[in-house]
Formats: sequence, C-alpha cells, structure tokens
Amino acid sequence: MIRGRVEVTEFESPVLRGNPAGDPHVRRVPVYLPPSYDTSPGRRYPLVVVLTGFTGRGRMLLNDSPWSPSLDDRLDALIHAGAPEMIALMPDCYTRFGGSQYMDSTATGRYETHIVNELVPWADATYRTRAAREHRAVAGKSSGGYGALHLGMRHPELFGAIACHSGDMLFEYCYQTDFPKACSVLQAAGGVRAFLEAFEAKPQKGKDDMLALNIVGMAACYSPEPAAELGVGLPFDLSTGLPRDDVWPRWLAHDPLRRLPSHADALRSMRLLWIDCGTRDEFHLHHGARAFARELTRLGIAHVHEEYDDGHMNVSYRYDQSLPALARALSA
Amino acid sequence: MIRGRVEVTEFESPVLRGNPAGDPHVRRVPVYLPPSYDTSPGRRYPLVVVLTGFTGRGRMLLNDSPWSPSLDDRLDALIHAGAPEMIALMPDCYTRFGGSQYMDSTATGRYETHIVNELVPWADATYRTRAAREHRAVAGKSSGGYGALHLGMRHPELFGAIACHSGDMLFEYCYQTDFPKACSVLQAAGGVRAFLEAFEAKPQKGKDDMLALNIVGMAACYSPEPAAELGVGLPFDLSTGLPRDDVWPRWLAHDPLRRLPSHADALRSMRLLWIDCGTRDEFHLHHGARAFARELTRLGIAHVHEEYDDGHMNVSYRYDQSLPALARALSA
Amino acid sequence: MIRGRVEVTEFESPVLRGNPAGDPHVRRVPVYLPPSYDTSPGRRYPLVVVLTGFTGRGRMLLNDSPWSPSLDDRLDALIHAGAPEMIALMPDCYTRFGGSQYMDSTATGRYETHIVNELVPWADATYRTRAAREHRAVAGKSSGGYGALHLGMRHPELFGAIACHSGDMLFEYCYQTDFPKACSVLQAAGGVRAFLEAFEAKPQKGKDDMLALNIVGMAACYSPEPAAELGVGLPFDLSTGLPRDDVWPRWLAHDPLRRLPSHADALRSMRLLWIDCGTRDEFHLHHGARAFARELTRLGIAHVHEEYDDGHMNVSYRYDQSLPALARALSA
Amino acid sequence: MIRGRVEVTEFESPVLRGNPAGDPHVRRVPVYLPPSYDTSPGRRYPLVVVLTGFTGRGRMLLNDSPWSPSLDDRLDALIHAGAPEMIALMPDCYTRFGGSQYMDSTATGRYETHIVNELVPWADATYRTRAAREHRAVAGKSSGGYGALHLGMRHPELFGAIACHSGDMLFEYCYQTDFPKACSVLQAAGGVRAFLEAFEAKPQKGKDDMLALNIVGMAACYSPEPAAELGVGLPFDLSTGLPRDDVWPRWLAHDPLRRLPSHADALRSMRLLWIDCGTRDEFHLHHGARAFARELTRLGIAHVHEEYDDGHMNVSYRYDQSLPALARALSA
Repeated sequence: MIRGRVEVTEFESPVLRGNPAGDPHVRRVPVYLPPSYDTSPGRRYPLVVVLTGFTGRGRMLLNDSPWSPSLDDRLDALIHAGAPEMIALMPDCYTRFGGSQYMDSTATGRYETHIVNELVPWADATYRTRAAREHRAVAGKSSGGYGALHLGMRHPELFGAIACHSGDMLFEYCYQTDFPKACSVLQAAGGVRAFLEAFEAKPQKGKDDMLALNIVGMAACYSPEPAAELGVGLPFDLSTGLPRDDVWPRWLAHDPLRRLPSHADALRSMRLLWIDCGTRDEFHLHHGARAFARELTRLGIAHVHEEYDDGHMNVSYRYDQSLPALARALSA
Repeated sequence: MIRGRVEVTEFESPVLRGNPAGDPHVRRVPVYLPPSYDTSPGRRYPLVVVLTGFTGRGRMLLNDSPWSPSLDDRLDALIHAGAPEMIALMPDCYTRFGGSQYMDSTATGRYETHIVNELVPWADATYRTRAAREHRAVAGKSSGGYGALHLGMRHPELFGAIACHSGDMLFEYCYQTDFPKACSVLQAAGGVRAFLEAFEAKPQKGKDDMLALNIVGMAACYSPEPAAELGVGLPFDLSTGLPRDDVWPRWLAHDPLRRLPSHADALRSMRLLWIDCGTRDEFHLHHGARAFARELTRLGIAHVHEEYDDGHMNVSYRYDQSLPALARALSA
Repeated sequence: MIRGRVEVTEFESPVLRGNPAGDPHVRRVPVYLPPSYDTSPGRRYPLVVVLTGFTGRGRMLLNDSPWSPSLDDRLDALIHAGAPEMIALMPDCYTRFGGSQYMDSTATGRYETHIVNELVPWADATYRTRAAREHRAVAGKSSGGYGALHLGMRHPELFGAIACHSGDMLFEYCYQTDFPKACSVLQAAGGVRAFLEAFEAKPQKGKDDMLALNIVGMAACYSPEPAAELGVGLPFDLSTGLPRDDVWPRWLAHDPLRRLPSHADALRSMRLLWIDCGTRDEFHLHHGARAFARELTRLGIAHVHEEYDDGHMNVSYRYDQSLPALARALSA
Repeated sequence: MIRGRVEVTEFESPVLRGNPAGDPHVRRVPVYLPPSYDTSPGRRYPLVVVLTGFTGRGRMLLNDSPWSPSLDDRLDALIHAGAPEMIALMPDCYTRFGGSQYMDSTATGRYETHIVNELVPWADATYRTRAAREHRAVAGKSSGGYGALHLGMRHPELFGAIACHSGDMLFEYCYQTDFPKACSVLQAAGGVRAFLEAFEAKPQKGKDDMLALNIVGMAACYSPEPAAELGVGLPFDLSTGLPRDDVWPRWLAHDPLRRLPSHADALRSMRLLWIDCGTRDEFHLHHGARAFARELTRLGIAHVHEEYDDGHMNVSYRYDQSLPALARALSA
C-alpha cells in the first residue's frame, strides 16, 4: 500500500500572539498529504480541516492506538479502498482552559480567526489544495463537531461541507447537568485560578477535575467576562452556589440547535452536511443530534443523520463513514 | 439497658382506598414506644413523625444493618444517653412510582391527607402522645426531608418542629441534571407504563433504572397530568427528547427553596428547624441546604444548619444529632 | 392472606460468653412461626436454620426492601402459594471480624457449637418442631451457604437437608484473588487491630475496607493463630507483603470443594442437597458451584444444581426456589 | 529550545517473518535522535531501548497528550534541562495477543531475538551509537518493565543499565488474581480463538475483555502449548473452570522475582538498576517491586528503588526520573 505522509509545521500565529490565556502562539500543525501528492505534482486536492475534541490538538489525531488507526493511517486505508484523495489540516486550538471551541473569546484568544484568516489561507498557499469552498470541508468530533458546525455556519464562503460527530448541542443536556458538580469542585478549589493551578500540578486528573475543567473551558468560550477571574464568567455564583440567570442565556445563544434557523442558508448551501452520534452518548448528545436533524428536515435542508450503538468516547471509526463521503462531495 | 418496643399496626386508610396508582390502602405502620411507656401508664410523650427517603416505607427504618442501628435501637440508645423520651411514628407512603413526596397527587394518591388527617389523629387517639403542635415534629431524610419541610410549612397547626436531612431542594441541581438520562431510558423502554412494568419484572434494578424511576416518581408528584400515560406529566417530551417548558415551572413551584418566603411565618413558628446535608451529596443537595439556610437567615428565622463530610447515602447517623434536639424542643 | 409471625428472643449463650473477640453473648434470635402455628396447637413443623452472609445476622433476614420481601413475608407468600409450613430459625453469629463462617475458632468464638449445641436444642424445646434430622434443614447464602455445607457435612445427625446459595468455595478464586489488595489496605492501616479500629470508626465503609474486612474475617475463621495480633493468622506477611505458604494450606483445608470427598456419606444421606449460583458471581463462586456439583455427580450423590443469570448480591429471590423444595423434602 | 527529531523506519524483520500469530514482519520503528545529532556529525551517543506496556508498540511512545509529553518532547525537555544526550530506540513487539513480553515464544514469535539480534545491531549500524553495553540501556513500563528486566538479565553483554517501571512480577498478585474472571470470559466466548475474533471485531473493548486479553497474552508468552488452541496454554481448564496445576509453575518460572537469584551476576554488572512503582498500583506491582528490591539488597546488588503515590496508569512522568539517571550512567 502506498502511503501518504504528514508534514508538521511550526506555525507562528500573529493572531494568537499575546493571547489572554498565555498560551503559545507557535503551534505545531500537521498536514496530511495523500499518496499521490509527491508523484503527481500537477494535481490539486480537496482540503478537510479536522478539529479535535476538548483537551485535544491536531497532533493527537496522529496518535497510535492498538485498535484504532491514526488519522493518517486511516486516510491511507480509506484512499486505498477507493475514497478520493484529499489533504487534511489539523489545527492546534488547545488552550489552558482545555480548548477554544474554535471561537474567538476575550478569555482564550481568537481561534476562529486563527483558522479562518491564517491556517486556511496558509494551507492554500503552501499545499496544492483546490482553493474554493466547493472543495473545502470542516469536520470534527465532540467539541470538534461543535467547531465544524460553528465554522461552517459562519463561514460558508470558506467551507462547502461539514461533518459533525457527537457535536456539542442542546446545552441543557450536555452542559447544564454538570453545573452543580463543577460548582462544588470550584468552590472546594477556591476559584477558577486556584482550580486551574491545582489541576495543572496534579499528575493524575480525576473524573471530577475533568468535569470541572470542561465547564470552565466552555465558560471561557461562551461567557467570557473581562471583570471575572481569568476573564471567565461562570454559569453559577461561586459564593452562593446558585445558577446565574444572566450567564446561562449567553451559553444558549451559542447552542447550534438554537442558532440553526438563522444560519439556514449557509447550511443549505453545503454539498454535504453530516451529523451523527452514538445512541448512548454519555453527554446525551444524541438528543441534540436528533433535534438538529429534525429541524434541518423541517427547513428542507439536505443532510445525513446517522445513529449507531455506542457512547461518546473512542468513536473515531466513524470517520470511516464521513471522510469518504466528504471526499466524494468535495471532489465532484 | 431498658428498651422501648415497636408496635406494627395494619392501618386501613379510607383516604388511600382506590388510589390511582393501584397501591394498597392497608399499610403496616410501625410506632416506637419509649422505654418507660409501659411502666409509666400516666405519662404522655412528644411525637415525631419520621419519613423515609424515596423507595422507602416506615418499616425500613427498622432494618438491621451491621454498622448502623435500626431506628428503634437508635432511639433506645439516645434515650439511654439522656435524650427525652418520645414516640416515633413511621408512615408508609410508598407507591408504585417509588414514593409520594408526602403530597397529594392525582397520579399517586392523597398521602399528605393520609398523614395529616389519618395517621396523626390515629396516633394521638391510640397512644399517649402530647397531642399538640408544640410536642409534635416531622423529620426525614432525602425525600423524607422534603416531606418534613412540605408538611411542616403547610401544617404549622400540626407540627412545631422540623428536621430536614439532605432534603430535596434546588430542583435545578437535584433533578434537572438527570432529565436527559431519564429521557433516554424511558424512550428505550417505550414510555412510562412499559418502563414501570419492565422495572418491576427485573430481579436487579440498575443504576439507570433507579435514576429514571426517580424522575418518573417526582413527575407523578410534582406534575401529574391526568391525560398523560399513568397520569404522569414528564418534564421532557418522549417523542422529541426535548425539555418541556410547560412542565418544569410546575416542578419549580414545589421547590422548598422557592416556597420558603411564602411560608416564612410557619417556619418562624417552629420550636426547632433543623437543616443538614453532607458536603459531598451526590444529588448536590448541599447547595440547596446552604441556600435555604441563607434565606432563613435573611428572613430572621431561627434554625440550625449543619454540614458534614459525607455523601447522600447511609447517613442515618445524623439522626443522632437531630432527634435529641427535637426531643428537647418538644419536651420543653 | 393469613400471616405467620416472628418472635425475637434475647438468647443468652453460655457457649459465646467470654468469646475471644469480645462480642456479646446475648443475641437476638428471630424465629418465624408459620400461619397455622397458633391455630393448630397440636401440630409440629419442620425446622430450617437460615444463615446470613458475611456482615449479617439473623435479624437482617427480616429487613424490609422495596422489591425484595423480608424472609417472613417471603415464607408467608410461599406457604400461601402451597409450600408446606415450616419454622425458620435465624441465628446471629456476627462477630467483630464481620462473621464466623458458623465455625468454632480461637479468634472469634464457638459459633458452630452455639448453633449445634444451643440454638437447635433450644428451638426444639421451645417451639413445636419435628425434632429429627429428617425434618431439619440448614440453608444460607454466601458465607451462609458455606455455613450450610459446613454444618450439614459435619452434623448429618442434626440436618437432613442443605441449601447452599452462592456459597464460598474454590478458595483460590473467591478469596486468594483479594489477598494483594487486602494486604495493601492492612499495611496502610498498620495491622489488623488498627485496621479494625479505624474501620469501626468510619461512618462509611469503602469498597477496599470491605474487601480487607472479608479477608481478615476469613483468616479469623480459617487460620486463627493465637500468637498473632487479635489471634488472626493472615495469609500474607504484612512486613514483606508476600503470600505465606504456611497459612494458605490451612484455608484450603476448609474449602467445601476439597472437603467433599471425606463427607460423601453425610451428603449422600441428605433428603435434599441444593446448590445454586448466579453465572456472573462477582466472587466467581459459579466456578466452585459447578465443580462441587460435578464432584457430587462423580460420587453418585443426588443433588440439585441450578444456575441463573445474575451476580452475587440481592439474590434472596432464590429462596423462592429452595425453601419450598426444602419444606417438601422435610415434610415427607 | 533546539529539538531532537524522530526517524521512523519500516523495519523488515527476517526473524519475525512467518511468525505463528500471523502478525506483520515489517514494523515501524521510531528512533529519537538528540538535538546535537545533526550538528555534531562526529559525536556518538548512548542508546536506550524503550519498551512499551501491553497492547503498545514503539510509535505509541510518541503519542500526544494534553498533560503528558510524548517521549521525544520529554527527551528534548530533559536534555534542555541538562541530561546527557542519548538516542532512543522504540521497538514494535506488538502481537495479536496484545504483546510479546519481549520474549521468544512458539505462540507469538521470536521477539527477544528480534530485539537482540536485529534491532540493536541495526541501530548501531545505522546511527552513531556508542556501541557497547556500557553505553546501552533497556527501559520500560509495565510489560515493558518486565521486558527491561528480562532482556537485561539475559543479555548483560548487550545492556549495561536497566530501568523497570511498574514491571510485571510477583505473578501470584499481578496475574493469578485475574484467572477466574478471565476464565469466565473465555468460557462465555467459546475459547481463545473465538474470544480473540470477537475482541477484534468489537468497536469498544470492555474492562473484562481487556482483563481476559491480558491473561491470554501472558499465557501465549509464558506457557505456549503447541497442541492447544492457537498454541496458547491457559492456566485454567476451560471445560472445568479449575486452575491447571501443570501450567502455573511454567508462569512462575518467568517471574523476575524468582529468576533474580540466578541472574544476580548480570544484575550486579549494571551501571544502573532502576526499579520503581506507584504505591497504589492496580495490579499490585508495588508488592513485587518491594520484594525485588529487598532481594537485591540481600544479595548486595546496587540499585535504586523508588515509590510514589500513584497507580499503574499514566505514569510516564516517571521517565523524568529514570531517563536522566540512565543517560548519566551510560555517559560516564
């Protein structure tokens, strides 16, 4: 089997320089180049931007695992089995808060701008992409699925196809359920800053630590609050422990399910809109995916909605379904 | 040590006869009589009504356990150690839905009326109680703690003291967090009736089964809906999986935290108002207890609020604190 | 439905007085008397001695539970459905170490003697039993199942039928697997005495605590060692953490599976020998039950061996199978 | 910071060609080259062979993770902080059974020979190593820790230093405890072959699956049995479910703790012998590490034995301690 190859670039981002969270502005960005790339120098390829989940960054897509191929091995195998060749770009939008939701935020930095204004143009300039929305997709899982919808809905001029796997939506179900526990953890830690510092110092991160980091991370993206500690507007009041009615609506305004109607045209313009989720998703995201698909149907927007019998973790085998479909849609 | 004794009466309840859930209207009701009861035939005693948690009934308070005494043994020991003697009444308000929250509901039956109009008068008529609110308390844990507040707030003419251990309140935290999972379970089961029938047939009830039963049970109490299956108005739509905005406010209207202001006079009239909760309560009830206590303070209502380092389960040792305090308050 | 009733006697045991573990020698012993007992004063009944599992005592068999009837309610229902009436005796052989395995031991006391020389004769003298082995059975679950085999094999003059539910056997699988964890817990606690004292003081017993108590309890029964701390010969060396080759054979000598051949005649004499176990037993006891049954078959000893799809806990519904069978065998 | 770099070679192994498990004989072998490697072409470096745990292969050491650096990043950071530069070789000895324990086996293949006769000579021929035992170490964690001891004890002519992190030893504690559960799983699956095929087909591997794979994998290494299914001699009889007395001694003969005395000279010859383990190791390996260290002390063999407060998983941060120590020992 002829393999593609991966180039890892140390990308220096002016957009991320001096970001408020103090994260590096130089990121290692892997790009997968398909098997024929070096031997067919006149050929151009579609581009898929693949976004990792919370606490991930692009390099992690290349991780080796005993029973789940790395993204480059997976693409090699899919192409070997007949999928059209494509280039894959793997951004690093990790932050101290665990992630960025691929959004601009005063608490984390301008990660949406980083992808849209920096990475995609750079990829088009550096590699032989077919540099038009018709040949460009954004895909991801979990927070990466959120990012795929977020970027696709807001930038139809850039992206002509979307794959959202187990993406964050129906926020009442996937986030709000964790507020009381996150509140307890943050109260015990003594606030956001103290929590993060203790978290970073722990050799092992416990289940409650991860839960709290997730809520802090989402707050940093959905409800940044410059006056608050580290600029993060929590959805509960740490002193009383009660939900904050002024913050929750700010989160809901970011829920893809609620944003869908106002981005119906963008979604309708996609060559492929792929939504899937396991029916035992531990974050209950199957409820959201179903509601999203139902709304798409109601609005007459073509899409694929698939369900499968599994949970939220270790489902990268779903890319075996979506990536060939994207590649075909982008190659037409 | 001289022990008290327990009488178990098969109580035939006209109020519960023909209840909508088809539960028995004859209930075994244990009554604890203190050590001197038989030897001091002229003496009268305070009465405490002790309410069990969800899926419990009075008899369960008498269960033997290797490291936690049954309620009769506990009372014997407390009295032996100096607590004033008292009679304890242990209602059985169990229903097919797991419980009744000690409320009247068109889905479960009239359990509040059963206690208030039947059991308390019967106890006063049958045993040598001091039959006045000054000498009568209501106490309980979890759903029993909810019941203690519910009955105490609504019937200050009957009850002069309340002890609420880990009681259900701040419903956003203790119930709403379980809606998506409960919804998934009920969808998979095929509705409320099918769920309950399958549940009853299972030799072992799993964790998710119990979670769903809890939500069904609360819905049967807080949002009964005669037109719905088994009369239970669920807080989510089983066909879409989405939260129901018309049901949730009905739940909130029962939240002790929200009802507090309108029952301030009743609460202020208590000889003792005891609130406690473990700081690691798995249903996050410590947040609610704190908020309740803070509100009591704000309104100038005397109370005891204690916290301790533990979770929600197996905390009946807390009665070692509250029962002597109640007995003293009722004996003054 | 006409119900039987339970008498609870405070039994003062000369045999247990001054026992080495310092446990009480006065025990509350419940006896179930069947529905016709009071109305048929000339009638005599078979007797079944029912033994609880580790950390249990007779009273616990009467515990109320939402979906599993107490033993008295269960017997009422079985008799109502046609099972022959019988008397049930529920010994209390609990010790500080969690139990006694219904054996005599220099570390715990003489619990086998207590049952054989005290309780059974007392029951025959006090109640209208049919006082002969043909009409007397011993039954139990888990450690109680062990006790049933232990007492039945050693005292065929007393017992004419045995029911062993999920009984301890094939000690390599049910105990040895827990040695390294138990060793770690006891090392951390600072020895047997310190462990027990800390255990007793804890409001909540954790999973590892229970595991360690189980191994300490078994050591107190199977390998008492007068010179060791609290007289308990542990199967590992607390200073090195390594298995002790001198102790393990003492345990194996108590394994019912290994003892079977030398008690073949006693087992062959039983009117009923009932063995069952869930196929997902967390202590792997299904392997032992199968091997025990296979050996019985090899020796031509009649028996019932049943398997069912469940684990080790909350399987008292199995008494619905064994108790009527015992009652019929004892009533013939 | 100047970084080293990783070369990944597709290594074609004559030794592994036609291996009995049907695993590939071409393996991707990463080699880490330190920062000065390209700029100091006359310089030679010590070599450390780093062995992964069960179900791992060399590439996995390069995996990206939010809070634990990949081995190349870790080495860069350690060298930047002052550790001597070294080359790291990361073999791939993965098999269908989950691993090879870095041994030769008739069931898996000749993985010890692969490392000793192929990879090390190839690395010396290909890279500027200091090609002598004094400058060559073998290190690993878990099964890789076992492999480090196994290879170091048997090939002191090749290796002059060993680091064993949480290595498999005291087999009674780390393996035998899992036999009954593994037996149940394999019985339910219908044997070794059926188990493996079902395992490979499952998108998610459950906890019991992993436990059973571990025992099958160890059996493939410690007790291969050409006549048995897939050549794997299980330590229990699948038909009876009982332990096999003929197999267990074959396992024990591979226990590093038991082999230590006969390899005392090899161990004494090491420039550094590093043993560590977390004190809460879920496989109880801290007991083995302590016993191993105690035996080393008894035999007067110099070594480092460290303990730390953690479990078995995600402890690669321990390389921050051992790798600089190895590098210093090998650079002397």
